[in-house]
Amino acid sequence: MKTRRAFLTSAAVLGAAAVVSAKPFTTNKNMKQPLIHHAIFWLKNPGSVADRDKLVEGVKTLSGISKIKQLYVGTVANTEKRDVVDQSWGVSEIMFFDNLEDQASYQSDPIHQSFVKNYSHLWEKVVVYDAQTV
Amino acid sequence: MKTRRAFLTSAAVLGAAAVVSAKPFTTNKNMKQPLIHHAIFWLKNPGSVADRDKLVEGVKTLSGISKIKQLYVGTVANTEKRDVVDQSWGVSEIMFFDNLEDQASYQSDPIHQSFVKNYSHLWEKVVVYDAQTV
Repeated sequence: MKTRRAFLTSAAVLGAAAVVSAKPFTTNKNMKQPLIHHAIFWLKNPGSVADRDKLVEGVKTLSGISKIKQLYVGTVANTEKRDVVDQSWGVSEIMFFDNLEDQASYQSDPIHQSFVKNYSHLWEKVVVYDAQTV
Repeated sequence: MKTRRAFLTSAAVLGAAAVVSAKPFTTNKNMKQPLIHHAIFWLKNPGSVADRDKLVEGVKTLSGISKIKQLYVGTVANTEKRDVVDQSWGVSEIMFFDNLEDQASYQSDPIHQSFVKNYSHLWEKVVVYDAQTV
């Protein structure tokens, strides 16, 4: 009886854990509160698909940096045009870091510095949003 | 011998797959090219931690929307102050959708509409970047 009770308690605990892990917040189980670095690039030649694609290629070279835990490179999505939606940019990079220190070390990583050297002629402006997830 | 060759071929294929999946781009194996919706909120009372936390609470209610595959709520990270880094905002939401249709359906989801009704008094301005990952 004692064993059965212990089993039922364990099952209840497991059940509760399953409910929690079904929520979007815990989809990424190994990094629940990453530091997200989002850089948005406006091209010098906004109409140039070639320049946009070249910059996409450049951002992808950053995937060699081990401190970046996830890297997503994007271009403007064809979502509904609304006043709040900024569609004037060209290329976006979204990076997940474990913590502030890893983001700081990324800034001085040689692969990042090569990226700036080889591709910065393509952009006019950059805006960065660094979010600490909570 | 045929069986052994077949085994070796399979092993080679698996080996190649393992190399690919070790790269940051494929960390999220089920959604390699998500549509990423990033909304940044500037508070009406920028200095109010209470308002910021209330809005964080509000954004978290959106986790009930099944079309959102991943949701990250953030506040300004304490990264180095540089000209390109915008630290003037209050709360950020980053959502991963499978595709354009899911993002459109999110806009009209009742949970999203309740969020706007109950929390929009807290913000002065919103800017949205919708990125199609490539």
